[in-house]
Amino acid sequence: MKYEKNYYSIRSNETIFEKLKEEVKNIGYYRLPFSDTSIIKTFAKANTKTNIVLLGIGGSSLGARAIYEFLYHKQHFKKKLFFLESTDPVDIRSQFETINLSDTLFLIISKSGTTVETISILKYLSKHVLLTPKNTAIVSSIGSVLYDYAKEQKMPFFSLADNIGGRFSVFSEVGLLPLALVGVDIDNMLNGAKKVYHSFFNKEKSYQELMEKARFLVENKYRFNINVLFSYSSTLEGFNKWYIQLWAESLGKININGTRQALTPIGLIGPVDQHSFLQLIMEGKRDKTVTFIKIEDFEEDIFVPDKSILPQMSYIDSLSFSKLIDTQANAIITSVAEQKDIPYDVITIDKVDEYNIAELMYSYELLVSIVGVFLQINTYDQPGVERGKILLKECLSV
Amino acid sequence: MKYEKNYYSIRSNETIFEKLKEEVKNIGYYRLPFSDTSIIKTFAKANTKTNIVLLGIGGSSLGARAIYEFLYHKQHFKKKLFFLESTDPVDIRSQFETINLSDTLFLIISKSGTTVETISILKYLSKHVLLTPKNTAIVSSIGSVLYDYAKEQKMPFFSLADNIGGRFSVFSEVGLLPLALVGVDIDNMLNGAKKVYHSFFNKEKSYQELMEKARFLVENKYRFNINVLFSYSSTLEGFNKWYIQLWAESLGKININGTRQALTPIGLIGPVDQHSFLQLIMEGKRDKTVTFIKIEDFEEDIFVPDKSILPQMSYIDSLSFSKLIDTQANAIITSVAEQKDIPYDVITIDKVDEYNIAELMYSYELLVSIVGVFLQINTYDQPGVERGKILLKECLSV
Repeated sequence: MKYEKNYYSIRSNETIFEKLKEEVKNIGYYRLPFSDTSIIKTFAKANTKTNIVLLGIGGSSLGARAIYEFLYHKQHFKKKLFFLESTDPVDIRSQFETINLSDTLFLIISKSGTTVETISILKYLSKHVLLTPKNTAIVSSIGSVLYDYAKEQKMPFFSLADNIGGRFSVFSEVGLLPLALVGVDIDNMLNGAKKVYHSFFNKEKSYQELMEKARFLVENKYRFNINVLFSYSSTLEGFNKWYIQLWAESLGKININGTRQALTPIGLIGPVDQHSFLQLIMEGKRDKTVTFIKIEDFEEDIFVPDKSILPQMSYIDSLSFSKLIDTQANAIITSVAEQKDIPYDVITIDKVDEYNIAELMYSYELLVSIVGVFLQINTYDQPGVERGKILLKECLSV
Repeated sequence: MKYEKNYYSIRSNETIFEKLKEEVKNIGYYRLPFSDTSIIKTFAKANTKTNIVLLGIGGSSLGARAIYEFLYHKQHFKKKLFFLESTDPVDIRSQFETINLSDTLFLIISKSGTTVETISILKYLSKHVLLTPKNTAIVSSIGSVLYDYAKEQKMPFFSLADNIGGRFSVFSEVGLLPLALVGVDIDNMLNGAKKVYHSFFNKEKSYQELMEKARFLVENKYRFNINVLFSYSSTLEGFNKWYIQLWAESLGKININGTRQALTPIGLIGPVDQHSFLQLIMEGKRDKTVTFIKIEDFEEDIFVPDKSILPQMSYIDSLSFSKLIDTQANAIITSVAEQKDIPYDVITIDKVDEYNIAELMYSYELLVSIVGVFLQINTYDQPGVERGKILLKECLSV
């Protein structure tokens, strides 16, 4: 008789921390905040086109989109960023009708260089616009099909390191390049991420908060298998989608014991989803944790007028909409707290800027890495999606 | 000693069916497809404004939005429909900047007449535009604050019956009025819903399909507590949101035995979410059922050019994007099927028109009603959201 085991074990914070420090050496995303951004800034400065079209899907677009949508209304960018990602013909047609393609810089982003959505749209695009080194730049791995294409066409090429996965690439060229092109202060972005890096690896505030949260999520993963992100601003819809990819694709894995792991992400927008999903949180089965995200200061505020129509509802008169949405969030947080058996936390974003959104995103990347070590999974691959790609290619190659 | 019980019991299809026939008498939504639409059509015909702004949130807007977004690209509506729902100041500002308010008909929709989001935006609006019987119409309950306002201002008023909840109101004035105004053939819509009604209540195809699905969901509700809707077209994003509200707000309830019930809805869009959530479905814990929705015929198709750039990927050359997205969906369905332990079903929409989307939506309404009877809950109320409203009013009235 022989007996070996490799049980799942709740590890000590110290063991986790050591594993993460090992990861810093091999997994590319950790050190991205410390990159030199000068080449990207020079490239962005030289661009004269008004529109930027990002051709990419999943990890190639979600990060840039999250930050662009968050900052868009506040920063009044002079350049417009568009996203071409789906193979839905309705989508592609309507985007092509909207964008002045002759005044556009095309950013083609695909790590593998063979992403079927991106390449098929690129091929379609190439019949509508003459793609040249002046209006096209490419981000891909060295040696990929797109790399060869860029070389052959003498187009600007930005290489993506092998050890940076798409969903962890927002602080690499994948995110920085499109954002710098529209005018985002990418150094300020990286500063926000650096702050979290230092705080975590110096075992300061971020270490305490993230370790505790990760531990709670893992220790209660069967009871609370669903994690709801309830963001109180429409400008966070892109962030929610980025979070869903990061969470689902990183944590939906078979671990080293062969056990299926799952924490399921859900993104909600307040107050709209108070009229939709909230009932389920309040009265449904206790299988959800909830993270509320609030914005401290909307800055560009508007007001309900004073002595307005409908005097029966004068209690909202002369209120600012910022105050209203904040009070709505607080009312829901209180009503959730009163239930006493719904685990929740609240993140408040101080200010709508690059620094703050980067802080939030880098914190989430770290949180996912910590949970991944706890769960004994490979956080950085996505083997479950390969089969579909093979089947697709088989079908189309017949 | 006294003993009484009221256990949860899996009921026979026949018992469920009898209960549903009882509901038809009391719950307003069932018979909506048989309404007379002439007043709505006359009103829509008389409208001369180019823009329609629907001021409403949750059940007051999600249904119309789902159908509008589904048909928009196909039907090339001459009128544009906008939605003002969130109290997010960024949202409201950007909408007000986009819309020519002087060429707009405002539809104010709130069943209670006191929805804080709707009323606060209405008050804000009233300082920017003179609201008159010529540019404003109201949908609300008789006797509400909005009813009084409409009477006082002599504005067109459409009453909402007490026994029709917001999330079941798409076939009432709430959905029909905005859709008729932009040019949707609302009679064809109702025909699609009628077809399902007859098929179900005559115990034909819909009866078999919906009963079986509801039974599966309820009998496996602890194992598969998450229901994923994977829709292969961006035009179904609004439908996904409508489904989430219908599902979450109807089924997240405490039942007659005091037990919390929950089936948790998730909406995905293909192929984009193949690059996000799919990994979790494929390798994560088996706690999800998946419903795929495909569109049979996109009609307005585009093609990957023949002999295009990137010859290494010539296997997609001269392919139509409709064919590509359909093949992508099929590849994912096959890869899910191969797992053998992920329950899934596939709905194919024959054609992008009012009839087909109405068929789908009415089927989902019926499915939710059936599940509700099984679970022994009140499918039509939403007591869990009341506490937040009270707390909000308390905070603001201080």
